Amino acid sequence: MDGDAGRDRLSRLRHTLRRRGIDALLVSQPDNRRYLSGYTAPDHGIQESAGFLLIPVAGSPLLLTDSRFTLQAEAEAPLFKVEMYRKGMLTLLEQLARKLDLRTLAFESDYFLHSVFLRLSALAKKRGLTLRPERGLVEQMRMIKDEHELDVLRQSTRLNETVFQSVYHTIEPGMTEREIALALELTMREMGAEGPSFDTIVAFGTNAARPHAVPTDRELRAGDLVLIDMGLVYRGYCSDMTRTFVAGKPDQTFIDRHRAVRQAMLAGIAAIRPGVTGAAVDRAARQVLIDAGYPVFGHGLGHGVGIAVHEEPRLSPRGTKQLRAGMVVTVEPGLYLADWGGIRLENMVIVTDQGCEVLNRDTTSLDL
Amino acid sequence: MDGDAGRDRLSRLRHTLRRRGIDALLVSQPDNRRYLSGYTAPDHGIQESAGFLLIPVAGSPLLLTDSRFTLQAEAEAPLFKVEMYRKGMLTLLEQLARKLDLRTLAFESDYFLHSVFLRLSALAKKRGLTLRPERGLVEQMRMIKDEHELDVLRQSTRLNETVFQSVYHTIEPGMTEREIALALELTMREMGAEGPSFDTIVAFGTNAARPHAVPTDRELRAGDLVLIDMGLVYRGYCSDMTRTFVAGKPDQTFIDRHRAVRQAMLAGIAAIRPGVTGAAVDRAARQVLIDAGYPVFGHGLGHGVGIAVHEEPRLSPRGTKQLRAGMVVTVEPGLYLADWGGIRLENMVIVTDQGCEVLNRDTTSLDL
Repeated sequence: MDGDAGRDRLSRLRHTLRRRGIDALLVSQPDNRRYLSGYTAPDHGIQESAGFLLIPVAGSPLLLTDSRFTLQAEAEAPLFKVEMYRKGMLTLLEQLARKLDLRTLAFESDYFLHSVFLRLSALAKKRGLTLRPERGLVEQMRMIKDEHELDVLRQSTRLNETVFQSVYHTIEPGMTEREIALALELTMREMGAEGPSFDTIVAFGTNAARPHAVPTDRELRAGDLVLIDMGLVYRGYCSDMTRTFVAGKPDQTFIDRHRAVRQAMLAGIAAIRPGVTGAAVDRAARQVLIDAGYPVFGHGLGHGVGIAVHEEPRLSPRGTKQLRAGMVVTVEPGLYLADWGGIRLENMVIVTDQGCEVLNRDTTSLDL
Repeated sequence: MDGDAGRDRLSRLRHTLRRRGIDALLVSQPDNRRYLSGYTAPDHGIQESAGFLLIPVAGSPLLLTDSRFTLQAEAEAPLFKVEMYRKGMLTLLEQLARKLDLRTLAFESDYFLHSVFLRLSALAKKRGLTLRPERGLVEQMRMIKDEHELDVLRQSTRLNETVFQSVYHTIEPGMTEREIALALELTMREMGAEGPSFDTIVAFGTNAARPHAVPTDRELRAGDLVLIDMGLVYRGYCSDMTRTFVAGKPDQTFIDRHRAVRQAMLAGIAAIRPGVTGAAVDRAARQVLIDAGYPVFGHGLGHGVGIAVHEEPRLSPRGTKQLRAGMVVTVEPGLYLADWGGIRLENMVIVTDQGCEVLNRDTTSLDL
């Protein structure tokens, strides 16, 4: 993130805060923290926070953290004044609320522990501070990516495909799901990714019938279908792609079913443009499988991708949100048959003014 | 966990709930969930829960999860009745609260999002249900390990040392901190661990002056000191060990400082027995470094280890809790000098009736 992007994000957030009558927002959610400040330290679970942002409507934005992270925070978040807490975040927050004369403090209800809220409430009562639980203020902003973010997302996808290809060519009978998943995650790091964006899914044969399969010690046999759903984090942005192929020569059943899923994916992609709802795109893809007489997948068609691998908007039967240019979403229909296996195909796309731009170029088994 | 251990844990928890006038406890914390039920699915962040336990004081304990996890839950948690939610956990909880005629429901305040609490409050108001935020009910129980848990912790430490040794012998000038950390984490998985219990620390030279160093691309040079702090998860239980050594021949300064830290560790271990406080053990170790004229470390001397790598009790200046037989703690004094580097040594011990049992056998550079 460059300084201009950072200043623009802060200015837009402050505009929202002013409109809602909020004096300052306490940001606890790590992806929101990174988006607004550039500070990359991850939390180790919500109970071990790497810091908080305190963004008043006027004056310097602040980054609150402990001694382990102050150097990193100062280096990564030049627009923020770093304040170190020694006796816990709330003690420092109390001092700052007094100093900044805050009357109304908003916090992120979706990423704030109840026990911390109880202590914050006690503090607020003592200081005459009004607390405002808020949801999605920063997540809303994150949905629309700027040019720089879109560029990094393109690069993240490109790297993900390069990793996939380099491992794909080594896959042979006898390898286990776990071995392939490990090879993919290792290759990601070797090639410069921060790590996987989610636990890599590698599933053979009937194991692929479970949409969220976890890699096992099952060995690949010639003729097995192989489903790989993988993503990585590159310069803070996630990628996500699924391919399904056969170890050896696919039979006609596989080819027919694979074509149906591919048609569903293409129908979903064709439906994407500004103004349509997530539900409409989901329906366009789902209908292709229904018309072909296949069972419908139990998950949504896709989800937003950015700093988080799952974010807004959702493409699902319940997705009422209208798509807008600059959103980035996955399109991932699936066909699951418990006794046979599963096929899922997934590409990522950018919503553009005219329609969408498909980020993926990998054609593995898409030419069946 | 065998069935007897599971029944015993549930029975002790119910005893506590009855004493506190609670009809049922909703368990959201993943380590507590695993401890009570045997169900191993991890959360992907607090916002993507793999399920909840609902433990009434009488009747079947329940495991609430969604369709992705029901098979796993049924296989891993035989003492629990698995209930699947389709429209979110709270909708199912509302039905169960009515069916079980719950009047007072406790939840884990330290692992419960404020936004979920708001929705739970609305539900409670509608149903005349009293909510009780609780802290540490299950964490208290987890502090004292049973024989089976102690055995797995011994095995986890043994495996951690085997992994350390196998990589230690490959370390040579030119390798980077990141490469060594990656090799350790890869070897853990190859040798049967579930994964690292925390992000592996590998720090050369001055990088080791930061207690929470993150591995960099710095290359090892002959004569550099090397600090490795690593742990793994084996059958659900964590290990944690630190060794510091020199690539090549240590000079007298390193030998002197290393001996001082070793003496501090041994003094800490010697102070451990039932009845002493965490603060007293911390002081015993810290005093050795003070007496030798070294700066004191800014972190606590140690922490409990079990299903979580950091749990109660804490060995620190603020550790008022008395040690009891069956607790498992680390003892990890350090000496940090910004211009020179750092030395930390860490063993894990079980508190026994007479004193303690040291789990580690690795002697790398401890014979200086």
